[in-house]
Amino acid sequence: MKNKYIIGIDLGGTNLKIALFDSRLSFKQKKFFSTAEFSQPQSLIEGIVRAVFEIIKENKLKKSDILGVGVGLPGPVDVSRGVAHFFPNIPGWIDVPVEKILRKKTGLEVFVDNDANLMCLAEFKLGSAKGAKNAVCLTLGTGVGGGLIIDSKLYRGSSYAAGEIGHMPINLKGRPCNCGGTACLESYIGNRRIACLVKKVFKKDIPLDELSRMAARNNPKAVRIWEDVGEKLGVALVSVVNLLNPDRIVIGGGVANAGRILFSRIEEVIITRAMVVQAAKVKVFKAKLGNDAGMLGGALLVKENSKGS
Amino acid sequence: MKNKYIIGIDLGGTNLKIALFDSRLSFKQKKFFSTAEFSQPQSLIEGIVRAVFEIIKENKLKKSDILGVGVGLPGPVDVSRGVAHFFPNIPGWIDVPVEKILRKKTGLEVFVDNDANLMCLAEFKLGSAKGAKNAVCLTLGTGVGGGLIIDSKLYRGSSYAAGEIGHMPINLKGRPCNCGGTACLESYIGNRRIACLVKKVFKKDIPLDELSRMAARNNPKAVRIWEDVGEKLGVALVSVVNLLNPDRIVIGGGVANAGRILFSRIEEVIITRAMVVQAAKVKVFKAKLGNDAGMLGGALLVKENSKGS
Repeated sequence: MKNKYIIGIDLGGTNLKIALFDSRLSFKQKKFFSTAEFSQPQSLIEGIVRAVFEIIKENKLKKSDILGVGVGLPGPVDVSRGVAHFFPNIPGWIDVPVEKILRKKTGLEVFVDNDANLMCLAEFKLGSAKGAKNAVCLTLGTGVGGGLIIDSKLYRGSSYAAGEIGHMPINLKGRPCNCGGTACLESYIGNRRIACLVKKVFKKDIPLDELSRMAARNNPKAVRIWEDVGEKLGVALVSVVNLLNPDRIVIGGGVANAGRILFSRIEEVIITRAMVVQAAKVKVFKAKLGNDAGMLGGALLVKENSKGS
Repeated sequence: MKNKYIIGIDLGGTNLKIALFDSRLSFKQKKFFSTAEFSQPQSLIEGIVRAVFEIIKENKLKKSDILGVGVGLPGPVDVSRGVAHFFPNIPGWIDVPVEKILRKKTGLEVFVDNDANLMCLAEFKLGSAKGAKNAVCLTLGTGVGGGLIIDSKLYRGSSYAAGEIGHMPINLKGRPCNCGGTACLESYIGNRRIACLVKKVFKKDIPLDELSRMAARNNPKAVRIWEDVGEKLGVALVSVVNLLNPDRIVIGGGVANAGRILFSRIEEVIITRAMVVQAAKVKVFKAKLGNDAGMLGGALLVKENSKGS
């Protein structure tokens, strides 16, 4: 049983990523598909099933060689029933029993969870949160996702929806957020919001990776934008630090590539505004596993839950 | 061993409360002292020791009848070493090894923890958070304290300083807080701040219990003040609800006596601004144990930790 392969899947608003891992979680193959190809939940599910069968076939494996399939989904998931409540960035999914459907269609053991939880699990087991007792993981992208490690294990909350750092309000009043809330962190530092700010400041579109390079070359306007993002993220993290007193904060996702300027500002805000005992304890790191975190997290979910493991 | 008595102590900025409990945690005696009597840490410690000996003597007990002494302290406590880092509202305490000193001076087993943690422990074992899986407890007074129950046990964080809901910023900018932070919840809804607001609105001092009665009689200005407190507390709780996805919120302390007007506003803000899955799961209750929570929590701490229990 120990030498079985595992399939990890990371479903995002843009890409469907799938990987085959050996029993030691080394990548054997990775495949990416565009999520936009699939307009309906049903066709997206068929796409996942097809990708699973393809990766098994291309590696000359049989179904019985696969321990299980772990899937990260971009929205709140009822882990106990394997049901996806909805996806903020993919329309048409309402209370879909993804786990049950995929088990039936693939004939394999399938486990699902929220993508930010799986990123957090991967960073905790294999990345920048390794060895932490209480950790907070964030992914900064179109959405601002988060996951929590409490007492050295993934904490999911009373209805499996914990970790939504992106939807902590950082002001009493402010703009409406996609989640239905107001003044949420995500409504200030989500990708799209930063892009708007860039357009306003530079009078043209600039990709965020270019904005990071400009900041690294000390372009004052670019520096100012990243400092502003760091300030807002920092204030939300002051709340998290004072509330949870974690020893580690791990930040990943495209926006985290802004690098030193962003991280310095975040650390400065925590030191200045968080309480002394809590601020002294916490360390902030960049995520280590990058785009692989979701797929690795899916594979780890299978390892933790499969009856065959 | 089972029929031993327990002493629970709640040290606050105003009162030192001490109680003798039987082994089933029924109160046998309560005594209150004014904290202001003791100007120095040393005299306050002597006061605690004297109170412990008095309560033993007055009940015709021997030291060997006492299982232990549990003490709630009004500031961050390193529970592993029994050291109080500092007390925001009592000057002169810096890294005092309270547990060790009290053990030596009383010859009894002593355990110390933060007072809000002990209130939370008491509400979880005996009060409004009983049966919760993940709960958030608040005490609203001069300070805004908090404690967390995670996976059915008290969560203390990586340096025993978790639960500081009062020091979550609810605005990016705002007034400085006693803790060194900015725009913390406590700086908006602490007792003193509400008293300032009352004076501004009514042009005179009105005690908060009278303000609650005025609101209950539909005095529009009094209603407005409590709604405003509820709004601000609600926004901080939206952060907590989206982050931790708890099933229970318990609110105690003097300010909680404002009653329905305050609680309705808090619930309204959570329903309006928190995420759907999280908001649907959480219930808000008034604390049940009132002023007894701290002493009961101290006794529970002894029960959980004493070698003799």
